[in-house]
Amino acid sequence: MDDLLSKVNSPQDLKGLSMDNLYKLAQQIRDEIIINLSQTGGHLASSLGVVELTIALHSILDSPKDKIIWDVGHQAYAHKILTGRREDFKTLRRLDGISGFPKRSESVHDQVDVGHSSTSISAALGIACARDIKGDGDTVVAVIGDGALTAGMAFEALNHAGHLKKDMIVILNDNEMSISKNVGAISNYLDKLRTNPKIHRAKKDLGHLINAIPAFGDHLLKTANRVKNSLKYLLVSGILFEEFGFTYLGPVDGHNIRVLQEHIKDAQNIGGPVLIHAITTKGKGYTPAEEEPSKFHGVGPFNIRTGEGRGKKKRRTYTNIFSQTLVDLAKEDSDIVAITAAMPSGTGLNKFAKEFPKRFYDVGIAEQHAITLGAGLALNGVKPFVTLYSTFLQRGYDQVMHDVCIQNLPVKLAIDRAGIVGRDGETHQGVFDYAFLRHLPNMTVMAPKDENELRAMIKLAANYNRPIAVRYPRGEVIGVERVEVEDLEVGKAEVLREGKDGAILAIGSMVYPSLEVANGLATEGIELTVVNSRFVKPLDQELILDLADKFNRVFTIEEHVLQGGFGSAIAELLVDNDSNVKLTRMGLPDKFIEHGSSEELLARYGLDIKGIRKRIKEVMQEG
Amino acid sequence: MDDLLSKVNSPQDLKGLSMDNLYKLAQQIRDEIIINLSQTGGHLASSLGVVELTIALHSILDSPKDKIIWDVGHQAYAHKILTGRREDFKTLRRLDGISGFPKRSESVHDQVDVGHSSTSISAALGIACARDIKGDGDTVVAVIGDGALTAGMAFEALNHAGHLKKDMIVILNDNEMSISKNVGAISNYLDKLRTNPKIHRAKKDLGHLINAIPAFGDHLLKTANRVKNSLKYLLVSGILFEEFGFTYLGPVDGHNIRVLQEHIKDAQNIGGPVLIHAITTKGKGYTPAEEEPSKFHGVGPFNIRTGEGRGKKKRRTYTNIFSQTLVDLAKEDSDIVAITAAMPSGTGLNKFAKEFPKRFYDVGIAEQHAITLGAGLALNGVKPFVTLYSTFLQRGYDQVMHDVCIQNLPVKLAIDRAGIVGRDGETHQGVFDYAFLRHLPNMTVMAPKDENELRAMIKLAANYNRPIAVRYPRGEVIGVERVEVEDLEVGKAEVLREGKDGAILAIGSMVYPSLEVANGLATEGIELTVVNSRFVKPLDQELILDLADKFNRVFTIEEHVLQGGFGSAIAELLVDNDSNVKLTRMGLPDKFIEHGSSEELLARYGLDIKGIRKRIKEVMQEG
Repeated sequence: MDDLLSKVNSPQDLKGLSMDNLYKLAQQIRDEIIINLSQTGGHLASSLGVVELTIALHSILDSPKDKIIWDVGHQAYAHKILTGRREDFKTLRRLDGISGFPKRSESVHDQVDVGHSSTSISAALGIACARDIKGDGDTVVAVIGDGALTAGMAFEALNHAGHLKKDMIVILNDNEMSISKNVGAISNYLDKLRTNPKIHRAKKDLGHLINAIPAFGDHLLKTANRVKNSLKYLLVSGILFEEFGFTYLGPVDGHNIRVLQEHIKDAQNIGGPVLIHAITTKGKGYTPAEEEPSKFHGVGPFNIRTGEGRGKKKRRTYTNIFSQTLVDLAKEDSDIVAITAAMPSGTGLNKFAKEFPKRFYDVGIAEQHAITLGAGLALNGVKPFVTLYSTFLQRGYDQVMHDVCIQNLPVKLAIDRAGIVGRDGETHQGVFDYAFLRHLPNMTVMAPKDENELRAMIKLAANYNRPIAVRYPRGEVIGVERVEVEDLEVGKAEVLREGKDGAILAIGSMVYPSLEVANGLATEGIELTVVNSRFVKPLDQELILDLADKFNRVFTIEEHVLQGGFGSAIAELLVDNDSNVKLTRMGLPDKFIEHGSSEELLARYGLDIKGIRKRIKEVMQEG
Repeated sequence: MDDLLSKVNSPQDLKGLSMDNLYKLAQQIRDEIIINLSQTGGHLASSLGVVELTIALHSILDSPKDKIIWDVGHQAYAHKILTGRREDFKTLRRLDGISGFPKRSESVHDQVDVGHSSTSISAALGIACARDIKGDGDTVVAVIGDGALTAGMAFEALNHAGHLKKDMIVILNDNEMSISKNVGAISNYLDKLRTNPKIHRAKKDLGHLINAIPAFGDHLLKTANRVKNSLKYLLVSGILFEEFGFTYLGPVDGHNIRVLQEHIKDAQNIGGPVLIHAITTKGKGYTPAEEEPSKFHGVGPFNIRTGEGRGKKKRRTYTNIFSQTLVDLAKEDSDIVAITAAMPSGTGLNKFAKEFPKRFYDVGIAEQHAITLGAGLALNGVKPFVTLYSTFLQRGYDQVMHDVCIQNLPVKLAIDRAGIVGRDGETHQGVFDYAFLRHLPNMTVMAPKDENELRAMIKLAANYNRPIAVRYPRGEVIGVERVEVEDLEVGKAEVLREGKDGAILAIGSMVYPSLEVANGLATEGIELTVVNSRFVKPLDQELILDLADKFNRVFTIEEHVLQGGFGSAIAELLVDNDSNVKLTRMGLPDKFIEHGSSEELLARYGLDIKGIRKRIKEVMQEG
């Protein structure tokens, strides 16, 4: 077969290809994606699902003049390959390699930096509004998944776009999935559009009835025609979208390039906001991914033949520990319920869902609702664990303030993927949560040093009668020996090591590295106290102020931005008490943290053993 | 007329009243609200609109066992009066008086503390879920306005409620308004439900057609019946809500108590999620408010006969200054556009909208979309001012991070009502914005000392090519003499006064009080330097570190919580530089700030002249 891929270096190169060659190209793109991802890992299933759609878009449109906005962006691999990044594709998600998401710095064809879901219609509408102010005639297309449609901001944008009537195209990439199987009334509705024979029959039957009308006699004809006209808008398939002011086209086969091209052209001709409903198969063309799309949403390196992951993990993850601990607690306490936002598997709550289906709520990609649903449950006497990734909890910030903290309700925030998350990069690092939670009155914020302490903190949270959050990292646990679950006291830190020369106040994932550094420095004659701080709020004020009295120098270490974080809280405490101690704050700098492995990134920002050791030694030697 | 009000001390007392007396009661409640609010001010128009609805709910339901959840809550005055708070009603929104919103601490009939919009369906669903876990049989009702329905989280909740199929009632209180006239496709849709003759005719005509069917002959009958059945769900009026999985009842007259009662009973009998669409008139029963509902949304004391406000303001407000300045700049710069979320009048953008209708976007209550729409506009080369109240910007926190800051886009956040907002209380104080903005990379955050500086900062923002936020207070300006608009430099503070004994670093609204205090203390021999800091991020590091070198004591003063705010940023800077200076941070404590006048609250928390002076003197005398 021709190596078409090597001839396609920009979307322009698609224009001359025959339909036959476009399909061949699709196959070559799929192979390229599968082969590369078997080495690098990445978002496999979503990208395989939109290869034909990507080809259809780039063959019809004139990017970058016409603007394609990928929602979430993890489905944009074919787009990357078609827009000059085939050579770089092997560096996907590697440190200093290309991003797993669209990035404006990579290509003029990437219109919007993205990573969180459901922003594309808003961004596209903004771009379309600016276009109309400037009088350009570009086509603006947002490609959004059915999962992303459950998020409120997508509806806010549909509502506004339907009102403004700007020329824009929304392609609904309907694969019946978020990361896991999609949930919610909208999902049921799309299901109905896809499959319910009633709708298709209704349209067909109305056609028959209307054809039969001339036989009815004149007095009925008038009525029937009126019915026909006035019911017309009720009879289109996508009535919900039509009600939002969109013209609905579809459903169409999202793997048929010609049909997609025709619909895109139709949408351009129709004008105003048009929604094209394209049905795609997540993982299309790679059997293991088609069969288990959830597993192949995001993958590490894998064996192409079997689909099995390579390089098995040795240890369990914090997510596993959370998952099992919550199930264990829920067996004893029938008031415990769990909420997630389209992440049952990523948060480990699938286990809880299986054991306690009536006490489990997957709300879809809807973090705002997830928090306030938790508040409602807590108001009526049950104990909700709202389990989200740190970066997605950002969507619920106002609800944590307004619905949880003001009412001082015992909603428990289980914050997974906190700190550096690695290869997803800038949009996904969970490095702001201490800062956006600790200024909220009534809130308690904690982070465990290891898996035993995570168990203890979940237990504490379950029984605590006020708002409480526990943040824990992505990835493997420390691997300590399991001990009986401890009873923790809110606001109490733990001294792990005593030394006469200074103190390290570490939190969460930074506690063990700090201890290791201190043990190492002890062999060189620098004796440091090491404190596992456990709580960012409330702080163990007594202990910290005692240490501040005793030492000339204190260090804080956190896997979080320095601005407003744990070290910032310690700085506040020290200055508020007119302490004379000097403080060195270690954490992440005031910039968005790029993608790469967690180890690489921690090393780059001086938060690995070597970096921590170097910094402490320098400071201690300066005096 | 009987004084029915004095006999109604709880919802139970409604049960025996005749329909005639219920209407009399409605009149008496209206009078009570109007008379009281003419003294206290408050949310007049919304509350007048739901008097009959409130009576209908409390006469049918058994509160607090049955649970009524008021969205936003500013329409709950009749509810307050009917649930034992008639006597306290004259203290409405006064310091230590009853709140303008439902508060669980006030009454067992207030199920949820509220103030921000669009949370009620989520909270009600959580309450219903907990009810079903516990096996109770209570009726749960959320009352939500059509304006609140434009917010994404209401749709997230509808989507989930439609999926779960829990027994719950949502009453859509449709008055065609948010605070101002409602916007968006949903609003158009509701309009259509209300008034479009096509729908009513379509339903009627289909009835005629179906009646005529027996005459068609057998072969058509079968088809016609199939059409009838399969189209049935398409023919209900509230198709959009039905698609979300709700049973739709209505539209009904929201001022007809009997009809409302019947619909509530019907909804209880139908089971599952039911939406009752009630049409109400904002300001009902008080002519000035019916005629100008926007003006009477939230009012100060007024003359009942004329509707005119009493106690005219002497000075212009910061909102006025922002409004006029933006219009002036936009006349010179056609790239400037403005976005608000259902607050054209509150933000002063109505003036901009009038001058530049094509460059103005009111997105409805949809802060998330507002931010990302702004990002999209900025991506395509225009200069968006996204203008929101500080407390509502919280809804867009993730979008500021993900869509504005990561992409380093020149979106300008104009943050009105920052700091203490007064009588709206806990849910509305704008006291977290420094803290949730300053840890975001690429962000610039500033606050003006007076109206001249606000003009300068808006000009700076207009021309700045990165994310930038300016926060300014609710209420009247300082009243300084107008000067030529200054060119400010990002990150540069201004020394207003020099003294040898210490320095005050003040920001925003606290600059003039600090200066006044310093001038006063000078007469007692304490000579303080006063700095107008202007920027919370980036700080004027050089200046601040110079002062830190020079003095033993520095004070920070801000109208913001101390945790993570301006003083926290200063503390970070000082400790990071091993400064020996002592820092006293003045600001708001770690609690939600109650309602009262701004003056009262600032005094209570030591941020008035007297409080600042007292604290500084104490600290200076201690040494």
